[in-house]
Amino acid sequence: MPTRIMTAAQAPVRQSSVRAHNLALVLQTAANSADRPSRAAIAAATGLTRATVSALVDDLIAGGLLTEHDPAPRTGAGRPAAGLALNADGPAGLGLEINVDYLAACVMDLTGAVRHRIVSHGDQRPVSPAAALAALDTLADQARAAAAAEGLTLAGAALAVPGLVAAGGLVRVAPNLGWQDVDVPALLPGLAGLPLIVDNEANLAALGELRAGDEQTFLYVSGEIGIGAGIVLDGELYRGGRGWSGEIGHVTVHPDGRPCRCGANGCLEQYAGQEAVAADADLAASALGIALAAVVNLLDIGVIVLGGAYAPELPRLRDGIEAELGRRVLTAGLAPVTLRAAALGADAAMRGAADAVIRSVRDDPAAWLSR
Amino acid sequence: MPTRIMTAAQAPVRQSSVRAHNLALVLQTAANSADRPSRAAIAAATGLTRATVSALVDDLIAGGLLTEHDPAPRTGAGRPAAGLALNADGPAGLGLEINVDYLAACVMDLTGAVRHRIVSHGDQRPVSPAAALAALDTLADQARAAAAAEGLTLAGAALAVPGLVAAGGLVRVAPNLGWQDVDVPALLPGLAGLPLIVDNEANLAALGELRAGDEQTFLYVSGEIGIGAGIVLDGELYRGGRGWSGEIGHVTVHPDGRPCRCGANGCLEQYAGQEAVAADADLAASALGIALAAVVNLLDIGVIVLGGAYAPELPRLRDGIEAELGRRVLTAGLAPVTLRAAALGADAAMRGAADAVIRSVRDDPAAWLSR
Repeated sequence: MPTRIMTAAQAPVRQSSVRAHNLALVLQTAANSADRPSRAAIAAATGLTRATVSALVDDLIAGGLLTEHDPAPRTGAGRPAAGLALNADGPAGLGLEINVDYLAACVMDLTGAVRHRIVSHGDQRPVSPAAALAALDTLADQARAAAAAEGLTLAGAALAVPGLVAAGGLVRVAPNLGWQDVDVPALLPGLAGLPLIVDNEANLAALGELRAGDEQTFLYVSGEIGIGAGIVLDGELYRGGRGWSGEIGHVTVHPDGRPCRCGANGCLEQYAGQEAVAADADLAASALGIALAAVVNLLDIGVIVLGGAYAPELPRLRDGIEAELGRRVLTAGLAPVTLRAAALGADAAMRGAADAVIRSVRDDPAAWLSR
Repeated sequence: MPTRIMTAAQAPVRQSSVRAHNLALVLQTAANSADRPSRAAIAAATGLTRATVSALVDDLIAGGLLTEHDPAPRTGAGRPAAGLALNADGPAGLGLEINVDYLAACVMDLTGAVRHRIVSHGDQRPVSPAAALAALDTLADQARAAAAAEGLTLAGAALAVPGLVAAGGLVRVAPNLGWQDVDVPALLPGLAGLPLIVDNEANLAALGELRAGDEQTFLYVSGEIGIGAGIVLDGELYRGGRGWSGEIGHVTVHPDGRPCRCGANGCLEQYAGQEAVAADADLAASALGIALAAVVNLLDIGVIVLGGAYAPELPRLRDGIEAELGRRVLTAGLAPVTLRAAALGADAAMRGAADAVIRSVRDDPAAWLSR
């Protein structure tokens, strides 16, 4: 029998990990409640004792993650509801994005509200990676200053890149930027000292959409000059073995078809990239439908979210996509596939990046409290 | 902010769940050790105290899940090593399979050894679902009698079916058997009283392969008259939203190609099903390569296991498949894809079914102990 690597789920449960688990549970219960719950309501919802909840809540308030509003008689329309809520002045996330034709930065607070947003338009293809990242570093500095001016402490930063990202933030290849083996963290000196996540833009946009929408399992497809996808399963982004999942742009739709930048023939990107949609929407919709049917047949995902340049084009594309899904998805007669436009539009990846930082705090408040 | 459904990970940690967690941890540590570990070795490996480990081990022995051999001086070659091991006479799993041309049953003990195996050949297509399942019920009875004769108690049964299975064991459609909406548990009265899992054959074969091999993330492709796949991610089978993942046989490889039973054109099954491989192995390999490249581009899976009728054909298919993977996988230049034949051959689904029962005991021994 092979020896297995021990995973987190196989680690022993100790008192310290029980506390960490329950801190996260209390924080998430407060965060996900429709109204501001009392300590007693959190105890009832979680099954923890009131004494335990109170001690954990005290720690979360002291660490700046929760705020508590005293119950008080109604004295005016503007008075906040009594109870516990995420602290909008607590740790915040810095979301960054580099794409083919813009740089962007935003600051998101712990409640998910965007407190600051800067977008700088300009074609990044003629610019060297070092120069592009220097410009982004400047943008990040402005965002940090804006956060500081509002009294927000940044818990970390995350950068969305249209490419394949390896461990340590190394961008192996970003074909539409012309990047190869770019050591991103080394080229963002202004962010030194801040935890930095570098990830694929479709992955982060999918996380943004996860926060914005109601679905916990969906495929997010980002249509720009390239096409990427983020696969969200049961509320978690599925990254694949090396973090390179979601390369739907290079799924073959016509085996002997148009040559692609990647060296293959008939990749989806050649039929349904931004220019191809403009040139022939029917052909693009059919190609998208063929590739999406493959995803549904393989993964049994019932919801497809079209983002980026696809969102405004969906009315033109829907019939063609749905016709292929109806023909090619084996279970189409048993369960319909829902197709919708992304809620966040062009900000999805930048917001998803900031959200990745916020999530890391919300998922493990004990780590934040011990910093 | 949307209200989320509370998942198991969000449930509070109580003493009873700590005990359940640690029981599973101790059992799995004993199961996955290369040699029979002592109580002290398990304490060292898990980080639990020796007193805690001893109490948990006592419960696992009393419940028939572990056996303990006393340390003793070496007196002969046949003497078992001292220490703890899974109990080969503990709870066992009944694995069942119905396929196009055979019925099968096996009994697997807690250590994963097949203790009994019956295969009954015969074309199931002309037989009604009720008659086929009645014959399987008889086979299951024989296997239960064989298990009882060896003093084994069955913890449950699992049945592998080449089709789409819905909740409650309802087979929505099994195209190659000609089944539609068959209530399997109702047609297996001999199994009444035993927990019964009904699942897709490629899913269960993938579980069998997971047990037999070293990889924790792979795509298992089952090539018979139909083609199915099981997706194993980080040691877990990915079932999809409704359990209908892995329908790789209906991924489009030639959009305007051969008509398929399912109503679409150009499905993989029409180019790489068992008859198609016999007719033109080169065309089959190319079609398989196109579909597998889509899987790798989407899921970033580095290992593909070919099972069923594909396993013996792999030498004829390998070059054609690898040529397409090399051309069409975006990351082919960064990380190779490994292609190998399944270890278990034709027994994979039946063994995977029995293994699913065994796993349910090994993953949650507390539930077994409280039965």
